[in-house]
Amino acid sequence: MIAEILCIGTELLMGQVLNTNAQFLSRRLSALGISQYHQTVVGDNAARLEAAYRLALSRADVVITSGGLGPTADDITKRIAAKVAGQELVLFPEAEEMIRTRFRQYRKEMTANNLSQAMFTPDTTVLLNPNGTAPGAIVPMGGSKVVIHLPGPPFELEPMFIDQVEPYLLQRSGRALVSRYIRIFGMGEAAIDLRLRDLMAGSNPTLSPYCSLGEVMLRATASAPTKEEAEALLPPLLDEVRARLGDVIYAIDEDDSGSLARVAVDALKARGWTCAACESLTGGMISAALVGVPGASAVVRGGFVTYQTDTKTLLAGVPAEMIERFDVVSAEVAMAMAQGTRERLDVDVAVSATGLAGPDGGTPEKPVGTVFVGIATRAGARVLPLALTGNRERIRTLTVKHALSQLAKEAGKRVQG
Amino acid sequence: MIAEILCIGTELLMGQVLNTNAQFLSRRLSALGISQYHQTVVGDNAARLEAAYRLALSRADVVITSGGLGPTADDITKRIAAKVAGQELVLFPEAEEMIRTRFRQYRKEMTANNLSQAMFTPDTTVLLNPNGTAPGAIVPMGGSKVVIHLPGPPFELEPMFIDQVEPYLLQRSGRALVSRYIRIFGMGEAAIDLRLRDLMAGSNPTLSPYCSLGEVMLRATASAPTKEEAEALLPPLLDEVRARLGDVIYAIDEDDSGSLARVAVDALKARGWTCAACESLTGGMISAALVGVPGASAVVRGGFVTYQTDTKTLLAGVPAEMIERFDVVSAEVAMAMAQGTRERLDVDVAVSATGLAGPDGGTPEKPVGTVFVGIATRAGARVLPLALTGNRERIRTLTVKHALSQLAKEAGKRVQG
Repeated sequence: MIAEILCIGTELLMGQVLNTNAQFLSRRLSALGISQYHQTVVGDNAARLEAAYRLALSRADVVITSGGLGPTADDITKRIAAKVAGQELVLFPEAEEMIRTRFRQYRKEMTANNLSQAMFTPDTTVLLNPNGTAPGAIVPMGGSKVVIHLPGPPFELEPMFIDQVEPYLLQRSGRALVSRYIRIFGMGEAAIDLRLRDLMAGSNPTLSPYCSLGEVMLRATASAPTKEEAEALLPPLLDEVRARLGDVIYAIDEDDSGSLARVAVDALKARGWTCAACESLTGGMISAALVGVPGASAVVRGGFVTYQTDTKTLLAGVPAEMIERFDVVSAEVAMAMAQGTRERLDVDVAVSATGLAGPDGGTPEKPVGTVFVGIATRAGARVLPLALTGNRERIRTLTVKHALSQLAKEAGKRVQG
Repeated sequence: MIAEILCIGTELLMGQVLNTNAQFLSRRLSALGISQYHQTVVGDNAARLEAAYRLALSRADVVITSGGLGPTADDITKRIAAKVAGQELVLFPEAEEMIRTRFRQYRKEMTANNLSQAMFTPDTTVLLNPNGTAPGAIVPMGGSKVVIHLPGPPFELEPMFIDQVEPYLLQRSGRALVSRYIRIFGMGEAAIDLRLRDLMAGSNPTLSPYCSLGEVMLRATASAPTKEEAEALLPPLLDEVRARLGDVIYAIDEDDSGSLARVAVDALKARGWTCAACESLTGGMISAALVGVPGASAVVRGGFVTYQTDTKTLLAGVPAEMIERFDVVSAEVAMAMAQGTRERLDVDVAVSATGLAGPDGGTPEKPVGTVFVGIATRAGARVLPLALTGNRERIRTLTVKHALSQLAKEAGKRVQG
């Protein structure tokens, strides 16, 4: 089965909106084992959209559109698809009912225009939208080809795709798919590629890398006639990946929502520990990442932002003479920040970060990117010295990831760093 | 002049990379007054890429590619364009010299492969790359049509486009362009659209909205034969926008790098004030946003993360009886958090945030989204009560924006909130 993504909207051509829908859909289709060879963006123009439909349908079995399902004259997605199919749009009562319900919920006046959102060609399967007023649709286009219409807003498109389109595509393919998400910190994409290249060339299960700043996620996906058979294909691959990468793997999950912050919070919670952070160059990012994990309140007590030098003394109790003697960016000060914070907040573990995020302030001995992450527990303190590269944002973000990995490690979770 | 963007790379079709290049290029082209009607993504496949070039060149004068300029066999971007142009690739010595220099800088071994990166069709204008080993190129394709090759990594593509491609496009168009970026907080896209629709329909200057969470940016762009003439077209439009929107405009800048955090830091710096934050639901995000502004060290002293209830007493000195009496999510506690932080850190202004980010914890009286932002100065304290909607991430992010806007306002900058 070949799919093609067609995103519709002049706001995309103007660069007013970042096209996250294309990435979301590509990622999900790829996990379903469905090939795609083209993605296209067109504006709200009837002639160009018609040509785009005809071209996409000549190349693919399933054409997935996003956007243009609203009630205004600009919203031509369904009308042009109907024209290409040689069909008329008719009112679907269950779609009308859904739209009326949504307007009641939102306490908004429904206009006559909105009824156009309930109109589709005959034989369409309507996809109800729990998060907005525009229903989606699976529209037969002749032969075995279909166009699938999805609304543009990602918080409407994403659940509709996962809950209603994926089951349709899976049923159509007659296959079951299962995936695992392998999260890696402490090894770069190139090094991972070198070690796993032969595994990444496999076709069932597949193994694909997804990279973000300082982290790589691998997705392992197996397909088989039943879910159980697909599940059985995964363990040998996962064992092999574990054997080759070792401790840099910090989690293997059934979904892709994992993060270093969640791993740290879960590990601390499992141990019954509380934590706190004392942050200079990261200015609150470590605490914010921890607090972003649902359920963090049992673990995260609070923290200090100690940006100006004397606040490290005032808030975290770092002796001023120590700062004078060793410099504010030093292993000693990082450890004292963590220790002082641990004591003052009475937590089981505290983490600290002091360093040079740049662009100014570097010296030959301490270049920009010099960072010390301190870790203190009731048993003592230690420090992780880092020599990071890149711009201010990158240095701060990598520091946060190292700090989170140290918290997880201290709580007993094996994490590289 | 019509342009078309062609992004090349199987990693985009797999969803492994978010296509920020397409948005960057669309936005810049739109600011240059250059129309685009299609964007396409294709993988590293010779036949499909050749068809994509031919289609794009049939529709556009300028085809801009991103990706596929590396030294490996997968990198076919230049080779296929040469085939479409009916030309051979030849070695360009200045490109070879650039690549050799880059390898010396990176202290890496150059391989024979890398020389392929210095090969282009005759009459190509080479675009040197200060941030990587792949030069870009402006390649004549017959008639007045060109293909412009840019490297895939955004930190290479973006400066190359701004510094080398924009001057070429401007010279080619014979026009000069100037823009202003109008930043708005406290009014939604729909309300702005209602007030400015006639101005957004104008063609010179143009006025285009760019939306992000809780904020709208408008770009006003004028074009004329000279920069001076273009500049002269902007003031009447800017005056009209100011008259219609008023205080919701918090900045009008010559570039688009502004933010509420920068406006707050600049306003505080101009007044010679220091600041601090005391954060519960935002968990450090307010401080992190302030510290993210270069030059924040003169203004941001530090701050508290007071996530667990008793840390509001321990760190910020909020009386435990007050929390007991009014609830931890209350106007009184928000003000006391700000006042205690202001005193303990001895700053001119402190801001605080306490509230319910959800998903759990809401009640009929205090639903999820109930947030109080406290502001304390040496003159006293006040509170901004908010009733926000959306998920946890949205509620936290909007709280940060309100807190930043309050800091800016307190420092004397007129900002709505």
